[in-house]
Amino acid sequence: MSETPLVAIVMGSDSDLPTMQGAIALCERFGIPHEVAILSAHRTPLAMVEFAQNAHQRGLKVIIAGAGGAAHLPGMIASLTPLPVIGVPVPSRHLQGLDSLYSIVQMPAGIPVATVAIGNAQNAGLLAVQLLASHNPELLEQVIAYRQELAATVTAKNQKLQTLGASAYLQQQ
Amino acid sequence: MSETPLVAIVMGSDSDLPTMQGAIALCERFGIPHEVAILSAHRTPLAMVEFAQNAHQRGLKVIIAGAGGAAHLPGMIASLTPLPVIGVPVPSRHLQGLDSLYSIVQMPAGIPVATVAIGNAQNAGLLAVQLLASHNPELLEQVIAYRQELAATVTAKNQKLQTLGASAYLQQQ
Amino acid sequence: MSETPLVAIVMGSDSDLPTMQGAIALCERFGIPHEVAILSAHRTPLAMVEFAQNAHQRGLKVIIAGAGGAAHLPGMIASLTPLPVIGVPVPSRHLQGLDSLYSIVQMPAGIPVATVAIGNAQNAGLLAVQLLASHNPELLEQVIAYRQELAATVTAKNQKLQTLGASAYLQQQ
Amino acid sequence: MSETPLVAIVMGSDSDLPTMQGAIALCERFGIPHEVAILSAHRTPLAMVEFAQNAHQRGLKVIIAGAGGAAHLPGMIASLTPLPVIGVPVPSRHLQGLDSLYSIVQMPAGIPVATVAIGNAQNAGLLAVQLLASHNPELLEQVIAYRQELAATVTAKNQKLQTLGASAYLQQQ
Amino acid sequence: MSETPLVAIVMGSDSDLPTMQGAIALCERFGIPHEVAILSAHRTPLAMVEFAQNAHQRGLKVIIAGAGGAAHLPGMIASLTPLPVIGVPVPSRHLQGLDSLYSIVQMPAGIPVATVAIGNAQNAGLLAVQLLASHNPELLEQVIAYRQELAATVTAKNQKLQTLGASAYLQQQ
Amino acid sequence: MSETPLVAIVMGSDSDLPTMQGAIALCERFGIPHEVAILSAHRTPLAMVEFAQNAHQRGLKVIIAGAGGAAHLPGMIASLTPLPVIGVPVPSRHLQGLDSLYSIVQMPAGIPVATVAIGNAQNAGLLAVQLLASHNPELLEQVIAYRQELAATVTAKNQKLQTLGASAYLQQQ
Amino acid sequence: MSETPLVAIVMGSDSDLPTMQGAIALCERFGIPHEVAILSAHRTPLAMVEFAQNAHQRGLKVIIAGAGGAAHLPGMIASLTPLPVIGVPVPSRHLQGLDSLYSIVQMPAGIPVATVAIGNAQNAGLLAVQLLASHNPELLEQVIAYRQELAATVTAKNQKLQTLGASAYLQQQ
Amino acid sequence: MSETPLVAIVMGSDSDLPTMQGAIALCERFGIPHEVAILSAHRTPLAMVEFAQNAHQRGLKVIIAGAGGAAHLPGMIASLTPLPVIGVPVPSRHLQGLDSLYSIVQMPAGIPVATVAIGNAQNAGLLAVQLLASHNPELLEQVIAYRQELAATVTAKNQKLQTLGASAYLQQQ
Repeated sequence: MSETPLVAIVMGSDSDLPTMQGAIALCERFGIPHEVAILSAHRTPLAMVEFAQNAHQRGLKVIIAGAGGAAHLPGMIASLTPLPVIGVPVPSRHLQGLDSLYSIVQMPAGIPVATVAIGNAQNAGLLAVQLLASHNPELLEQVIAYRQELAATVTAKNQKLQTLGASAYLQQQ
Repeated sequence: MSETPLVAIVMGSDSDLPTMQGAIALCERFGIPHEVAILSAHRTPLAMVEFAQNAHQRGLKVIIAGAGGAAHLPGMIASLTPLPVIGVPVPSRHLQGLDSLYSIVQMPAGIPVATVAIGNAQNAGLLAVQLLASHNPELLEQVIAYRQELAATVTAKNQKLQTLGASAYLQQQ
Repeated sequence: MSETPLVAIVMGSDSDLPTMQGAIALCERFGIPHEVAILSAHRTPLAMVEFAQNAHQRGLKVIIAGAGGAAHLPGMIASLTPLPVIGVPVPSRHLQGLDSLYSIVQMPAGIPVATVAIGNAQNAGLLAVQLLASHNPELLEQVIAYRQELAATVTAKNQKLQTLGASAYLQQQ
Repeated sequence: MSETPLVAIVMGSDSDLPTMQGAIALCERFGIPHEVAILSAHRTPLAMVEFAQNAHQRGLKVIIAGAGGAAHLPGMIASLTPLPVIGVPVPSRHLQGLDSLYSIVQMPAGIPVATVAIGNAQNAGLLAVQLLASHNPELLEQVIAYRQELAATVTAKNQKLQTLGASAYLQQQ
Repeated sequence: MSETPLVAIVMGSDSDLPTMQGAIALCERFGIPHEVAILSAHRTPLAMVEFAQNAHQRGLKVIIAGAGGAAHLPGMIASLTPLPVIGVPVPSRHLQGLDSLYSIVQMPAGIPVATVAIGNAQNAGLLAVQLLASHNPELLEQVIAYRQELAATVTAKNQKLQTLGASAYLQQQ
Repeated sequence: MSETPLVAIVMGSDSDLPTMQGAIALCERFGIPHEVAILSAHRTPLAMVEFAQNAHQRGLKVIIAGAGGAAHLPGMIASLTPLPVIGVPVPSRHLQGLDSLYSIVQMPAGIPVATVAIGNAQNAGLLAVQLLASHNPELLEQVIAYRQELAATVTAKNQKLQTLGASAYLQQQ
Repeated sequence: MSETPLVAIVMGSDSDLPTMQGAIALCERFGIPHEVAILSAHRTPLAMVEFAQNAHQRGLKVIIAGAGGAAHLPGMIASLTPLPVIGVPVPSRHLQGLDSLYSIVQMPAGIPVATVAIGNAQNAGLLAVQLLASHNPELLEQVIAYRQELAATVTAKNQKLQTLGASAYLQQQ
Repeated sequence: MSETPLVAIVMGSDSDLPTMQGAIALCERFGIPHEVAILSAHRTPLAMVEFAQNAHQRGLKVIIAGAGGAAHLPGMIASLTPLPVIGVPVPSRHLQGLDSLYSIVQMPAGIPVATVAIGNAQNAGLLAVQLLASHNPELLEQVIAYRQELAATVTAKNQKLQTLGASAYLQQQ
């Protein structure tokens, strides 16, 4: 990616990468220049501070941060940058990501984190694209087209269901 | 507000207005042209569809939607617009807004809602400002200044605490 | 099915079909004319609006809708039809369907959804049959007979348990 | 009420009456002949059995049952009648009705209870009306009109908000 | 078992039998005459009523009842007998038995159910034995001896741990 | 009370006394000799050990223990006595007694606690009476009579409701 | 306090001070030199980093940190100091401190926070004293004496209860 | 280990040993003399009392206790020793350790337990090391070095990610 990244996708551990891959794939699909980094609020706090403080000066427009358990990465980055931060609650082992969700979404007044569903990094990526698209008519058209593709997929499945009936459809799955 | 609104703040009922006022106040503070509407996913679904479908063509850049209980307004608007949608889980009577939170944040792939903390419409407003600011250097500076004010308030309280001691501080509260 | 459908069974995704199959099987067992469709509140919102607005004019008497996560399909259909809507909370990946349950059952005053247990589409089907049966003495007799079969199955199992004893019964399972 | 009741509204205790009043008011509004009774699954189990077994023979078409805590009344009535049963989870003291909700909605296969939101007996009443209306075109028109009234109320509030602005609106509340 | 049963162990479905086997085994270990039955509050309500009403006249001293989901069996039996009823929340598929626990333990004033841990029918059996033992000095000695065996098992494991060390102990597991 | 107590009612703090008073009143109503004590698992652990170890030798037949939060009193007493122990989860300040409930009911195999509803000490008292009554025909009759009184109260309220109608009944409350 | 502080008590906002006062009072009771500061992870992140990095070099031995909602202060300080950090989950408005608890206790491997009960800053203070006491025999004796006072208070209340009986005791409360 | 143990690691059952092994490994890594024991609050209560009462006189400085379900071991040991006690909520079968967490962390005023994340015994071990290190400059340096190793691991993973890109990194996992 030779272009200046507009979106940064950061995560606390490489064990979060399979989840966060959904955000990366979305950026790639829309051709958004992006960067990916492992950056731990708890194990590399100073690197995180430096990253967050400089992000807006490097041309980044939005930051996606994923973390699990006592998930502090999205909120701490949000406290250190004026850029919008999107938080992905990574599923946790014992509480299924409910701890991650509470730790990310329940931010105090003044420091919001735009939180998406547990484990749904794809939506974090799409939200980042939508933020960029709100100032980019061409990209907005691509978002509209993407939605139409989603609708077409549902419509095609429904037509197949009407043709086959439920029993045959289920057997094909 | 003679300018074209950039932010729409919608809610399902006028009983949500005291909560959503926090988002309105934030837009006013940053001088962001905005509009406010009562629009119910369940009681006025067709008006909601019309609003959401046209929003991006009227010049809006971001939509803030608040709702409580089985809170469908943010997600349904998100399904009908390419614009980013910020969801505010309004506190509910029996489940304290946990139902609102789940109904808003747990959106399926393809239709994200940027969710903030239960009842925290102020942060929804700030997030909207940050989205606009990521493409507006002057506004970005205002966000940075806002954060510095927040920090200064904390610092001032801490200095007062150091001067008075905890007991005297508590008595003054 | 050449007869006019009385029951519609709709779902947000074909991944919900294995769960919703329980409702289809129940309608088939009672010989109730029914239709099945994939219809997403979030991905095909306008198709959903059209379906829901016309349902009562096509002769449908009750609608069963299943969805998972931020499950808006049952409530949105309910907002657009005067017909009774039965909601099935489809189990979700991380919160086990608790998010689906809250999103479906916690509807505001004026727009009820008749909610059944998480994942229990069979009961949604039976509830639809009971609604029809309350105005159809012959069908009511069939519901009574169905209940007697359920009771007979329990009684037979108990008799087998009395004959074999618990240990032998368990070994046969 | 000289007519044969079509809807029965039963509850486990007179402490549930303020909650269940919402269902009564709804039946009155639509002119549905109905009966109201206090009937405890735990304190008068035999009276409950007798009530439930005879309900469909007395001309009742649907039963609304409300209970709190380990709320067994809706499910037990459902096990003893072929009629559709609507359950209202009455808010409980310590768990805010979550225990009531689980005890009512999580019914096993074969015995559904059509569950509405915690404390929302008004919706139970409306659901009963909708069940009757699905076989009564005139009543169906009344349901449609009721929905239009709900929509008109929201529209009027929105117009007032547009006229006054949010601050003045809030001061009038 | 030729002796009159003192303990009845009932459950709503034969799918509960693997869980309830723990209570049966405990009764067998202490030589307590007991009976086992499948008896569904929802599918065979009248058989349940008859069982519960007659239980104390047949010489039973305590009833153990297990059920899952909207678990009404223990509470309904308790409402129909003056005997103490012990409830076992059987683990449920989606809510892990939390629904079962709430449906069993949260009984209203006047109708207690002595609830044990989710899935822990062995403890229900032991509790039944302890109830009998409180009026039977010989059985009380057996309970004391049982506890000493439990303690001896823990002590033996600890001694083995001291001898082997944790690593070797883990490898032997 | 000159007679040897059969029931002990213990609690961790005098702040639990208003809750536990329900158990005391029940014992008084049935004329059961009982004793009441404040005994903290955490603040007076050795006094608790001594109490629990001697309880069965002093003629006690059952122990009722109430505690809140990390509620260890019922389980620890149960570990030190062969007598049946009934646990009352006392409502807690922040988690509404859910922590108390989990800490009391989720006991491991071998050491059951017969748990009642959150805050429902009256039912703990009644359960203790039922345990005694299972070996005392006269007391069993009193339990049956008590149940009949409960039923009569419900029946009387229902008759009043039939006479007055719901509106007038509500106004009299 | 002229002595070098051994314990720091920090909190995210002065609204946490009434809760955190419990920790301050405990330090004062044991004569432990301590300092108190308002220090927000989200509003003054750089001041927090500086505080945490230097804490062990200033002679501090343990840090108590309290925060509510998405409570990042304890965990972030823990990530920046080798000293033990004690976390106090401050009760939150909508989720009663459950969000605070999860955000503080569910820390990843390598960065523990010693978490106490929701709102229980007194115990955080006592835990800090116990940490110091484990290397200070005189202080350890004071902890033992403190525990004896707690026990004596319970014993005195119990004796009063034995003297007055429960009814009179309750009336005096 | 010929040296006097400074840390005791105790657990209620050998089924907890795989979880608690994390604390043992941590002590071994830092060369802290420690002892390990199986000690059940419920099955060997008197052995637990003796252990806890003598712990501080045998030279122990901190106790780590792990338990699951109604987890009373950490709190009961804390009630019997002036030493700091660290509690590990062991994951439970049905409630995923939420019952363990509540039973350990929600201790009453006067008897704190320093609670770590569900199943995270490694952090309990590290917290014990940090407590010792706060009075041992050499050990404090080792804690600092340990943190630097953690940071270096994250940094190395990030560098590998920068080199390989996300897709290749994921394929190597």
